[in-house]
Amino acid sequence: MSETLLARRARLLGPNVKTFYDEPVHLVRGQGVHVWDADGQQYLDCYNNVPHVGHCHPRVVEAICQQAGTLNTHTRYLHEGVLDYVEALTATFDAPFDTALMCCTGSEANDVALRMAQAVTGKTGVIATDHTYHGNTTAVHQLSRSNPPPGGYWDNVAFVPAPDSYRPLGGEGGMAHAHAFAARVQQQIDALETRGHGFSTLILCPFFANEGFPDLPRGWLEPTVAVVRAAGGVIIADEVQPGFGRVGSHFWGHQRIGLAPDIVTLGKPMANGHPVAAVVAPSEIMRAFRERFRYFNTFGGNPVSCAAAMATLRVIQDEGLQDNAERVGAYAKQGLRELATRHPAIGDVRGAGLFFGAEMVLDRDTKTPATAYVQRLVNGMRDRGVLLNFLGVHYNVLKMRPPMPFSRANVDQVIDTLDTVLAQTPLA
Amino acid sequence: MSETLLARRARLLGPNVKTFYDEPVHLVRGQGVHVWDADGQQYLDCYNNVPHVGHCHPRVVEAICQQAGTLNTHTRYLHEGVLDYVEALTATFDAPFDTALMCCTGSEANDVALRMAQAVTGKTGVIATDHTYHGNTTAVHQLSRSNPPPGGYWDNVAFVPAPDSYRPLGGEGGMAHAHAFAARVQQQIDALETRGHGFSTLILCPFFANEGFPDLPRGWLEPTVAVVRAAGGVIIADEVQPGFGRVGSHFWGHQRIGLAPDIVTLGKPMANGHPVAAVVAPSEIMRAFRERFRYFNTFGGNPVSCAAAMATLRVIQDEGLQDNAERVGAYAKQGLRELATRHPAIGDVRGAGLFFGAEMVLDRDTKTPATAYVQRLVNGMRDRGVLLNFLGVHYNVLKMRPPMPFSRANVDQVIDTLDTVLAQTPLA
Repeated sequence: MSETLLARRARLLGPNVKTFYDEPVHLVRGQGVHVWDADGQQYLDCYNNVPHVGHCHPRVVEAICQQAGTLNTHTRYLHEGVLDYVEALTATFDAPFDTALMCCTGSEANDVALRMAQAVTGKTGVIATDHTYHGNTTAVHQLSRSNPPPGGYWDNVAFVPAPDSYRPLGGEGGMAHAHAFAARVQQQIDALETRGHGFSTLILCPFFANEGFPDLPRGWLEPTVAVVRAAGGVIIADEVQPGFGRVGSHFWGHQRIGLAPDIVTLGKPMANGHPVAAVVAPSEIMRAFRERFRYFNTFGGNPVSCAAAMATLRVIQDEGLQDNAERVGAYAKQGLRELATRHPAIGDVRGAGLFFGAEMVLDRDTKTPATAYVQRLVNGMRDRGVLLNFLGVHYNVLKMRPPMPFSRANVDQVIDTLDTVLAQTPLA
Repeated sequence: MSETLLARRARLLGPNVKTFYDEPVHLVRGQGVHVWDADGQQYLDCYNNVPHVGHCHPRVVEAICQQAGTLNTHTRYLHEGVLDYVEALTATFDAPFDTALMCCTGSEANDVALRMAQAVTGKTGVIATDHTYHGNTTAVHQLSRSNPPPGGYWDNVAFVPAPDSYRPLGGEGGMAHAHAFAARVQQQIDALETRGHGFSTLILCPFFANEGFPDLPRGWLEPTVAVVRAAGGVIIADEVQPGFGRVGSHFWGHQRIGLAPDIVTLGKPMANGHPVAAVVAPSEIMRAFRERFRYFNTFGGNPVSCAAAMATLRVIQDEGLQDNAERVGAYAKQGLRELATRHPAIGDVRGAGLFFGAEMVLDRDTKTPATAYVQRLVNGMRDRGVLLNFLGVHYNVLKMRPPMPFSRANVDQVIDTLDTVLAQTPLA
């Protein structure tokens, strides 16, 4: 069955359209933290942040149905849905974030954010970390060091090393690492100015999710912020992965690390799977953009999208999912640490809230990345009904980022299964 | 009420977020070809192609509800919905179009199409018409002559004059105009080669919708195609406006004008308002892209989007909406021509299927565009319960592009109302 489906997929979608796992999963149904395949096999979903409040959450489904049956149109007409949502959304931010631009994907949001930074600074130089991902448009694909654009990188793009708390730049962790990172940012600012672009923005995920979610203390970005501000640049925080309460202690990833960004971008989890994204900014930055760029997004901010996003936000708040993320996430990290006492392949346990995982190594002293091994683990977990994945600079970090209603019982299942898979999977 | 809503909108969304009409419409409900405002006033919708098969079509709403309550996830897992849809979609195309890349917005589709052209030609030079619109990402914003990007145009972008059948390039219409247009394309190909970019693609809307939907005979693009092919370039047909049966005689705009493009992009009407878009291409072009670009779109091709798109496609087919577009569109043009016998401000009547309108002039001999006048007409129509708009190189073309179930009775209402508004609106 799966093979026929794969062949049909290659015929209709083309080659090189990656699936997860050696044996891809053919899903037919989802509910809460579970999904089911065509054979009726149940899986625990430890990976998907798109169904943020749980697969097919009834309140979100109901909001979509109700609004889809009433009106769906664009923002050239007046509609209260987009205003009610932007008001509720910006209320979750610290001052001065009080306006939003609604679009459809995180890629579109970052593509707009880069131009917003350009509008406010008058410069075009962009700095990103060298193992990040901010989306798939032509412009934001330029920020992807791990997936080089075939035509090469634009001259106005520069990279700094991804923060790695397990192997810190300069050899020392904490604030020494923070200053070493800031020094690299300063170097690239200087290089962009030398090359004539000037410095516009540093864009980063405040959780450094794709980089392997390093363990960085609150305030770690302060030296970097000082460098960026002194150069007249702005900071874009890409909250597509850590946002909407996932990190537990705070509603936004930038709040957790103590960063006050200038522009914030949102995507995937925003409407539980409905294609909704946004750029949130202080009104003066929004004004600088809106006055220089005539931007309209047909689907952005439509009544159905806003109803889906509003229901998702209300469920997070009403069901206490941020608190749940903090409590259950702490319990999960404790479970991983306990596993680490018995499984030497676990070199480091990291994460916050319901975004956690473990860096796998061949040897704890040399910290040699166990890249092939982590792939075997992920496939072994899949075969035992637990869906998770891996990422990181060395692609050796087990990544768990489940729907937000994840429970302690779900954690127990993951830890027990991982214990079994680790025991049964030889490291060499 | 409206003023408070406008003020709230400016506070939350920022300035310069345009609305339609001097007195914006505050919509609360839509059904079929009608929408209603907050005061219960009914409007005939003659403009929106997003609710392609009619506002809130029950089959599309049901498909969305059913799938949103079952599973919504991304294409890293296997799911039959995206395959069933791509199979049904490509079946509406002529050979060799047999694969599709699913994304969320027409902007994303065109952004991908440009890179697809680059992958297949190895060149980067792009030619567009000088009054087109292909979307809002950084890359496709470069193709918008009427909304210049603040940082200026990239050196690899070139423009040719928008076809204008009412004032043809070179003074003579028909194939003389076609050859004059092709000669301009050749000039820009040469310029791109001189500037070192080489020539990759000519992107155009095969209906030249934003340009004012000029009246061009079938085969009009043949001299241009010859020039593009001789230079080793490819043609991208942006079907966001004319596609999905709207032009009546054919399912796709490029089929109507007799153009065989290399890449086709789709957007707005595809899923009746759900954010769905696609790039359709022959498998060898898809392969060239997929092998050089690692592209993934989280929301693209998700089960709910595909269910909405499939329902929309089936409704077009089952309800005979393409035939309806042809018949009712012809009736509408006849009505406009009849109006033109009594209202000298109507300089030219154009269109095909349910995309029709009239170019308004101050004087039929000089063809001086009646730009301010057409705005007064559009506002007058709105005040009498008929929503339409204007566009064109001189922004003086009344544009009507209603939902596809538009009837002869609906046309009668538009024509009668327009007759009244024309009579009551002084030209000078």
